[in-house]
Amino acid sequence: MTSVSFDKNMDSALDAIMTRTSVRVYDPDKTVPDDVVEKLLRAGMAAPSAVNRQPWAFVVVKDRAILDALAEALPYAKMLAHAPLAIIPCGDSAHFLPGEDDVLWVQDLSAVSENILVAANALGLGAVWTCIYPHSERENPVRKILGIPESVVPFAAIPVGYPAHDHKPKNKWHENLVHYNHW
Amino acid sequence: MTSVSFDKNMDSALDAIMTRTSVRVYDPDKTVPDDVVEKLLRAGMAAPSAVNRQPWAFVVVKDRAILDALAEALPYAKMLAHAPLAIIPCGDSAHFLPGEDDVLWVQDLSAVSENILVAANALGLGAVWTCIYPHSERENPVRKILGIPESVVPFAAIPVGYPAHDHKPKNKWHENLVHYNHW
Repeated sequence: MTSVSFDKNMDSALDAIMTRTSVRVYDPDKTVPDDVVEKLLRAGMAAPSAVNRQPWAFVVVKDRAILDALAEALPYAKMLAHAPLAIIPCGDSAHFLPGEDDVLWVQDLSAVSENILVAANALGLGAVWTCIYPHSERENPVRKILGIPESVVPFAAIPVGYPAHDHKPKNKWHENLVHYNHW
Repeated sequence: MTSVSFDKNMDSALDAIMTRTSVRVYDPDKTVPDDVVEKLLRAGMAAPSAVNRQPWAFVVVKDRAILDALAEALPYAKMLAHAPLAIIPCGDSAHFLPGEDDVLWVQDLSAVSENILVAANALGLGAVWTCIYPHSERENPVRKILGIPESVVPFAAIPVGYPAHDHKPKNKWHENLVHYNHW
């Protein structure tokens, strides 16, 4: 790899991370093509997981009535009523680690969700992470609407669409939050 | 933004996500420059957080004796003894949400950690996420070594360095893990 192509990679990949922001309003005239959805899912599954358990599964929702039902059920995901697509990353307890590490799937699914958000931004899409787990009053209706088994935990609802307008990401850099060698 | 520059961004940003893999052996002759460390930290702080609480802080360790002490204390981070750098993302309980949402900092810090890993890969570095939280027998020695206050939780130890050799990322794409509209 030449240093030129490497620099290109560096700049644009960092750019996708740095310019990601929560996008809640989508262009009503643009749906998300299936090959683009697959890229988002591939990015999600490329996440690391504790002991490489890959304790995840995904529900992709494009059906208008189901998106509307999810919007109804989820207090912080009302934008689903106007999104062309949602991805629901789930934790599959069949692949959770034993003992004290049984909670690490939450960290794995969070890495999955962040990969999807960064990939969405890189693909010109807008998305937002809305929390389902650990709220049982959100998990249960989502399970019912999507037919998700009891052994699987719907983790987050990520509405996705082409942004309706431009976004300026927040500057969240705070140098004072960094300690060197010692707190 | 023209479609040409947009495509460039798309490809290399997705590439940084898709080619990230856990790197545990580092070139002993190459340290990580300070401006590169800052890019990793900026990527971390660009993560989303529940209600935008940004409940994080960072300890950056370059001191050889401190890296060795961390390697000694952490059962799955022995590679710190041969890494030029570690980043310890922490959760600061002063910024945790109240009530049932007090656990969401774990999701936030996981997004931070994944951003750092993807940014490291984009910058030609190798890194690996090693778990501290929720193991108190790891948190306590790390607190002691780094002088981290009781109100702050060391979340993960991320050794970083230039990879000693090439890596082939795992192919983790499993189409059967994706459900459409209904489980």
